Amino acid sequence: MIRAAVYSYGNIGHAVLEALLASPDFEVAGVVSGSLEPGALGDIPVVRDIDALSNVDVAILCAPSRAVPDIAAQLLAKGICTVDSYDIHTTVYEVHERLDKIAKENGTAAVMSAGWDPGTDSMVRALLEAMAPKGITYTDFGPGMSMGHTVAVKAIDGVKNALSMTIPLGTGIHRRMVYIELEDGYDFEKVASAIKNDAYFVHDETHVIKVDSVDALKDMGHGVHLVRKGVSGNTHSQRIGFTMEINNPALTGQILVSAARAVKKQAPGCYTMIELPPMDLLYGEKEDLIRRLV
Amino acid sequence: MIRAAVYSYGNIGHAVLEALLASPDFEVAGVVSGSLEPGALGDIPVVRDIDALSNVDVAILCAPSRAVPDIAAQLLAKGICTVDSYDIHTTVYEVHERLDKIAKENGTAAVMSAGWDPGTDSMVRALLEAMAPKGITYTDFGPGMSMGHTVAVKAIDGVKNALSMTIPLGTGIHRRMVYIELEDGYDFEKVASAIKNDAYFVHDETHVIKVDSVDALKDMGHGVHLVRKGVSGNTHSQRIGFTMEINNPALTGQILVSAARAVKKQAPGCYTMIELPPMDLLYGEKEDLIRRLV
Repeated sequence: MIRAAVYSYGNIGHAVLEALLASPDFEVAGVVSGSLEPGALGDIPVVRDIDALSNVDVAILCAPSRAVPDIAAQLLAKGICTVDSYDIHTTVYEVHERLDKIAKENGTAAVMSAGWDPGTDSMVRALLEAMAPKGITYTDFGPGMSMGHTVAVKAIDGVKNALSMTIPLGTGIHRRMVYIELEDGYDFEKVASAIKNDAYFVHDETHVIKVDSVDALKDMGHGVHLVRKGVSGNTHSQRIGFTMEINNPALTGQILVSAARAVKKQAPGCYTMIELPPMDLLYGEKEDLIRRLV
Repeated sequence: MIRAAVYSYGNIGHAVLEALLASPDFEVAGVVSGSLEPGALGDIPVVRDIDALSNVDVAILCAPSRAVPDIAAQLLAKGICTVDSYDIHTTVYEVHERLDKIAKENGTAAVMSAGWDPGTDSMVRALLEAMAPKGITYTDFGPGMSMGHTVAVKAIDGVKNALSMTIPLGTGIHRRMVYIELEDGYDFEKVASAIKNDAYFVHDETHVIKVDSVDALKDMGHGVHLVRKGVSGNTHSQRIGFTMEINNPALTGQILVSAARAVKKQAPGCYTMIELPPMDLLYGEKEDLIRRLV
């Protein structure tokens, strides 16, 4: 049994706990949370500091991405393996190098950026290039909530509550559908214009819609369509696609748990999902997996 | 540069050679063929025995599956890495164990069953289970030629030439469309009935059609649709799909070459595709691949 701790308990932490409880090879060591009451999860220990939990093999980090690298560095130095869904694409490599060094110094391992994008989508993008090295891959997201865009809208003056939906238009182009509740005393047209001129939205087709209740619109479903048209050898127009319609936190939580299984099988170091053999993500004996999946 | 030999030169051998010539990190050591004339490929050495080629890092086996295990065993024992697209699903594990032992004894590595099914489809099936551990995956093939079924039809009395097309009906169920040229003096209805009662066809909906020329119908295009509806954590109805419309030998040849790149990065032993990190299949520096794909 792998003893796993859930580190931080929001939407993703909750989904990770569900996936751990559904996995036959995991034991929940406890949940590390700054806000949850100690008895809130019944028999599952809730602690403020991971040192209060015993024999943790792997910590699954469910804190916001910005906080992840420092938490991972601390835990790896304590001898605890880590798994995270760090999703700031532009700095993935720098974080990878930092955690790789700490993990190797401490004989531990980390899997980073283990969600669906980055994560399993990254693995699929790698596969598509192995199958057709020349060509273009498009990643079309949605329809679904964008957390980053929603946070950006909420920061704008006059916005009481907001939801930004990502709508795929194909070839990696997206429309933003922004639903807002307006603060009293603000002019809708001015607020809408501020949103459309924000750095998050200025390059995309953006529609702003005033609603009475943002909460009434919320749905955790999301989707993606990865598509590549490329060249195998010198044969053109090879067409390959990957599509999902999924519950976003549930899928992210499950992939984190599958990655927590894989991290225990790796040599010391830090790994993104494209550096992991797919078999390592699965529960079961090698012989059975090869007979069943190959 | 990786020096690769193409072992056996049919449809797949030809496609492998094309993929090697298009890959910046490969050098063609030569082609091993029992039938090809020595000068048939211009500057590329054509030999009867692989010992006539110098410094071969990896041999890409393009012989029929039945012949592959013995050839791989011989080459691994000589210190040459091998890659193959062995596709007899029922004995994959036994061949894996046999080659693993020989590879480890000789400090070499083998990647087996590296085509699209088994191969990249196997990797996708593994990923789908990592994302939604409970549920059903269906693999729907076609439309495209089935080599195995075509060979089975050709063996039936009264069949001069044949082509068996696989048509996907969904949920892993396939229709067989069989096109035949009839030998003189045979009764079409009797031959059609013999085909429908053959072990390859008796469990599937099979239609037999008499044509003047089978060659006029041949098209190397094929396709697959892998689909899973499953459970992440305890969230049901997660839907994930993978689809391809491709030239069959070109894709197989390209995947064999990508696997030949990966085999050089593995520790001694035998690997199926689900045991390989996707990144190892790709040309390029680790930093660039992580920045670009994760």
